[in-house]
Amino acid sequence: MNYIYKDENALYFECGYSCDNAFLLSLGSEKIFITDGRYTTEAKEQAKGVSVVEANDISKKAREILRASKIKKIAYNPLEFSSRDIDVFKSKLRDIYLYPVPNLSQKKRCIKSESEIALIKKSVELNAKAFLEFANFIGENGMGMSEKRLYFEAKRILSDFGEYELSFDPIVGINANAAKPHAIPSQVKLKSRDILLFDAGIKYRRYCSDRTRTAVVGDKFSFKKEQNLSDKEMQKIYDTVRKAQEQAIEKARAGMRAKDIDRVAREVIEKEGYGKYFVHSLGHGVGLDIHELPRITKNSDETIEDGMVFTIEPGIYIADRFGVRIEDVVVIKEGRAEVL
Amino acid sequence: MNYIYKDENALYFECGYSCDNAFLLSLGSEKIFITDGRYTTEAKEQAKGVSVVEANDISKKAREILRASKIKKIAYNPLEFSSRDIDVFKSKLRDIYLYPVPNLSQKKRCIKSESEIALIKKSVELNAKAFLEFANFIGENGMGMSEKRLYFEAKRILSDFGEYELSFDPIVGINANAAKPHAIPSQVKLKSRDILLFDAGIKYRRYCSDRTRTAVVGDKFSFKKEQNLSDKEMQKIYDTVRKAQEQAIEKARAGMRAKDIDRVAREVIEKEGYGKYFVHSLGHGVGLDIHELPRITKNSDETIEDGMVFTIEPGIYIADRFGVRIEDVVVIKEGRAEVL
Repeated sequence: MNYIYKDENALYFECGYSCDNAFLLSLGSEKIFITDGRYTTEAKEQAKGVSVVEANDISKKAREILRASKIKKIAYNPLEFSSRDIDVFKSKLRDIYLYPVPNLSQKKRCIKSESEIALIKKSVELNAKAFLEFANFIGENGMGMSEKRLYFEAKRILSDFGEYELSFDPIVGINANAAKPHAIPSQVKLKSRDILLFDAGIKYRRYCSDRTRTAVVGDKFSFKKEQNLSDKEMQKIYDTVRKAQEQAIEKARAGMRAKDIDRVAREVIEKEGYGKYFVHSLGHGVGLDIHELPRITKNSDETIEDGMVFTIEPGIYIADRFGVRIEDVVVIKEGRAEVL
Repeated sequence: MNYIYKDENALYFECGYSCDNAFLLSLGSEKIFITDGRYTTEAKEQAKGVSVVEANDISKKAREILRASKIKKIAYNPLEFSSRDIDVFKSKLRDIYLYPVPNLSQKKRCIKSESEIALIKKSVELNAKAFLEFANFIGENGMGMSEKRLYFEAKRILSDFGEYELSFDPIVGINANAAKPHAIPSQVKLKSRDILLFDAGIKYRRYCSDRTRTAVVGDKFSFKKEQNLSDKEMQKIYDTVRKAQEQAIEKARAGMRAKDIDRVAREVIEKEGYGKYFVHSLGHGVGLDIHELPRITKNSDETIEDGMVFTIEPGIYIADRFGVRIEDVVVIKEGRAEVL
């Protein structure tokens, strides 16, 4: 199959190098990396298994190469290209059939190699260390700090003063803001007995981690899974989310469909009467992209296999009051889910 | 003209509210903001002049509304939508002609209102203050720090501990890294007599600023435009860039074509023999997006008008040695460029 890539993680997976202005053409047994003069030196040093071609107008150069190649058809990921990019290719390459294959690169990346799993594991470990450090910071200095300031301090700690990139902008939600799955940090200030939800990940050699903990603000602040909430119903909600996560991890198996793993967690939550407050899917693949395949949703027919890496992150959100989410990254190994 | 928007700044400009999962349909005199349950409360409170419609599948809902509206055609910006988005609309809306208009929203935003200019001015002022503070920080603590660490400290100061968002990831380039127009921060450490290039901007109420200064590391570190370089040729290069910028600001007029402003700066640099080292265009519009219209490039036929806001940022880059760029944001007012 001939194909064209543009997305940086698709490029990187294919040849070990990427930049923000490049196309990779895979035509039969040949791979061509087209980029501009700012990047060709690095590309030639770092990209493996490709010939590097320099051009000011990389789209024009790609079309020239495609025309000269005499190929009849080529695949692209329609989520990776703007409508404009594809319009230009189609209108100027009338003899070549460009056809869309959603998530083209992601499909190849769905089952991770041993070395990829090792990189994700390292990413998860560094991230877990940052969670510990952030918990200590909150315990010592966090009281009275705004979400915005905590958000900044979280980024400082996660990135180790800029050493690591982040998988995404972390979520730091206090009480009602923790009930919004994608809250923007506010001026609300942290006080004793608040519920704090923290969702964050870093990148290690480009591989992402992702973790969420929900914790009670008190004397010994910690992101451990044991938490003592001040109110009986809140404790029940917390314990329900925790149990849903444990059950999903415990029962996940290679050969299951993704939606059946989602089902395990959802049933635990529904049984306690909170089904309608679990408003998102159970998880998502993690790798070079923070959201990859497989999708762990209630409709996902994808079959789980050894080597897949994904999050398990049930949640219950009570609007205007608080939210609980607990998330870990697992790998499927010898048929079962192992927490990384 | 009927149109559909998805981009957050396009949405915000249109109705004063945006979120990351929404479409805005403008159909005749009616405007409809379609989003999911996470955002409808906020949308109803904040969005002006639109009716807010809630849907789990916003694409499907948009198609339903379009079908019911009986309109014949609707415009979209092909740079704003993925190829996938447009494929789905086209295949499921066979009776409506969807036609591409590149930069649809940006064209409307090219001439700024007085209140927008005031917001950009405030953004530029806060950014300039952060440049001062970062210069003081470097003077006191910067020696021996890596680019990565300086990059982190720059983000801390620019964002005021997370209070402001940044227009883009700042560029902190020492010597040879300043010669790469888009260098990634490295482990190179700052030392006396280095050349430091710093390009950064913040957002104030969503409006961007953008500024670049190039400075010599010495006893009194400052981002002032007066700089004393250690070497005669380097000083000549610095002075040439400075003169190119001053001349372009001085000679810019309403009624000129953008390419003629680019020409003013390029001629100053060419005259000194550095033409081939000025590898990018002179500037770009600034507003809600960090890169907007007008484009100030050597091919841009856009006519400059009162109310346009853009950068003027010539540069000379000597590969493997150093780079100089000086950038300010100007507004065209009573026919002339005023530095904000």
